[in-house]
Amino acid sequence: MSDESHMRAALALAARGLGNTWPNPAVGCILLAANGRVVGRGWTQPGGRPHAERRALDQAGAAARGATAYVTLEPCAHHGHTPPCAEGLIAAGVARVVTALTDPDPRVAGRGHAMLRAAGIAVTEGICGPEARALNAGFLKRVEQGLPFVTLKLATTLDGRIATAGGESRWITAGQARRAVHAMRLAHDAVMVGAGTALADDPDLTVRDMGAAHQPLRIVLDSHLRHSPDSRLGRSARAVPVWMVHGPEAAAAARAAWAATGAEVIEIATTTGGSIDLRMALSALAARGLTRIFCEGGGTLAAGLIRAGLVDELAHLSAGCLIGAEGLPSLAGLGLQALSEAPRLRLIGVEAVGPDVLTRWAI
Amino acid sequence: MSDESHMRAALALAARGLGNTWPNPAVGCILLAANGRVVGRGWTQPGGRPHAERRALDQAGAAARGATAYVTLEPCAHHGHTPPCAEGLIAAGVARVVTALTDPDPRVAGRGHAMLRAAGIAVTEGICGPEARALNAGFLKRVEQGLPFVTLKLATTLDGRIATAGGESRWITAGQARRAVHAMRLAHDAVMVGAGTALADDPDLTVRDMGAAHQPLRIVLDSHLRHSPDSRLGRSARAVPVWMVHGPEAAAAARAAWAATGAEVIEIATTTGGSIDLRMALSALAARGLTRIFCEGGGTLAAGLIRAGLVDELAHLSAGCLIGAEGLPSLAGLGLQALSEAPRLRLIGVEAVGPDVLTRWAI
Repeated sequence: MSDESHMRAALALAARGLGNTWPNPAVGCILLAANGRVVGRGWTQPGGRPHAERRALDQAGAAARGATAYVTLEPCAHHGHTPPCAEGLIAAGVARVVTALTDPDPRVAGRGHAMLRAAGIAVTEGICGPEARALNAGFLKRVEQGLPFVTLKLATTLDGRIATAGGESRWITAGQARRAVHAMRLAHDAVMVGAGTALADDPDLTVRDMGAAHQPLRIVLDSHLRHSPDSRLGRSARAVPVWMVHGPEAAAAARAAWAATGAEVIEIATTTGGSIDLRMALSALAARGLTRIFCEGGGTLAAGLIRAGLVDELAHLSAGCLIGAEGLPSLAGLGLQALSEAPRLRLIGVEAVGPDVLTRWAI
Repeated sequence: MSDESHMRAALALAARGLGNTWPNPAVGCILLAANGRVVGRGWTQPGGRPHAERRALDQAGAAARGATAYVTLEPCAHHGHTPPCAEGLIAAGVARVVTALTDPDPRVAGRGHAMLRAAGIAVTEGICGPEARALNAGFLKRVEQGLPFVTLKLATTLDGRIATAGGESRWITAGQARRAVHAMRLAHDAVMVGAGTALADDPDLTVRDMGAAHQPLRIVLDSHLRHSPDSRLGRSARAVPVWMVHGPEAAAAARAAWAATGAEVIEIATTTGGSIDLRMALSALAARGLTRIFCEGGGTLAAGLIRAGLVDELAHLSAGCLIGAEGLPSLAGLGLQALSEAPRLRLIGVEAVGPDVLTRWAI
């Protein structure tokens, strides 16, 4: 077994934390004894603590001595809520540490690797770096750009419609596709929709029937706070967090009514067009710790995010159904002057999901 | 090796003829000697003759005696341009004949099987029947319903657009997808577009760079014959057939000009809306022998065919590109009142084609 294959196993552990560890990264750790046996496995726990290394070390106990640790991100070097993981690895007598990425967090940024080396531990960096970057794209984007990773979901007919002219959209995709959407929600820190979708569908945006131990938080971009506090979101805001992002023109009464539901009410400046400044909104969400946001539309918000270059990945569910040109488009106008200006996406996955097809695209 | 596996091999041979044998069916034949060796293989040749059985028997020569013939369609029993294949199999001394389908052609319709049995040959029918029906869907639909099998191609962005607001559509899909489209054209008897697409794109609708030994014929549904005879289609009509389908209002001068290019000019009644009656048009095409038509749009013709229930299969090329709501829709209006009226399609294939995705759907 190569370093790469052990690191891939650690990355698979890390992935279990996606959607569940913010503001911390989702990390995985495997401890391999000199005899080739795995003596510890860990991944970042809900809320970001304990860290993966701590879990693996606790599991290994004395067997960690002389072992090799495969960690998907540089071990932390700073005293936060817990002692730094680099110290823990040293104290446990680990002989070698293999990492995939340097932690861009300025409190770490190479200090973890340096601390290990200073203690006489052999350190190998950059194993499976691209895979680790992809897995931690949300954490990395938050730290490096102050923005969350945004996945945009489009669930459309084959002719790109999301509802009939009358707004009927239940159901275009089948049950298996809806389960796939719930699984995607679970792997994100938050689910986000625009006001139009909130008003039209009165969604609750929770994950159902998946045995989910946690729920992603729920965000509505609603410049005038038109969505009713007596909606499914408002009525459940104490059970699962709701963040209502609005503009300066939202009425005081609406703000108060939403705050009374238990929702967090976040004011963001609007653009000259009167809609919420999406870049500022996402910056504010990243500043609150969010690393991965799953946007489920509607067409106006989707187009706004695309136009602003704020979408990282697109999940396209294509249903075997045709609605025709009277139907509601999945995407509002993009204002293109020429085809050369059209955003181009790179295919990263394709699979049949029940009777529908899910394709994933990087932007 | 079972009867089914030999029949599947015969079906694979038959598929080579698709698009190339009309008005005859694309048939495959394998002759298996008693020692288990394949001694003859044949498929229907371009233009529909020689038949698959004749080719396989000629290849096998004396080795056909005592062999089992696997034929994807009941051997013909009538004297046409050639002696009936049932007679050929009897004369060659074949011991057993296995078929997938009864030929619905009223000149055969069980007489082939009966002729074989009367000569003392063991006959097994219905092996791989569903696969054979799918392969011969065009021929069967022409004989049974007087209509051709229609494959509708939609090549769209992820948001279901086929061009920018300004009509720019080259290129939304990549080269590999265009090659896949050319391969699909080759497997059909004819390629068909509406007048809008002909006028906007001036297409030639031929198959290029595939080493193609034949070209599907080219059809434009153009009620007023607005498309110019001095177009790519008009200028090439003597090299590859062009059929211009028009309504009664088309000007005599336009009919004459198109006839002068070498194109066939076919008049079809129009509906009260003034557009060509699509069912009548397709009936006329089937009456001329066409079994498989590949429709490449545009949106008005596509929607008309869908509304009239004339589409059998949809080939959807989805390109990693977004145009937005100003772009041209892939499908014009369908006039749905409710989502329950939306045509539902069944997924029959999904594959990545270069950077794009091809899904195939049965209606």
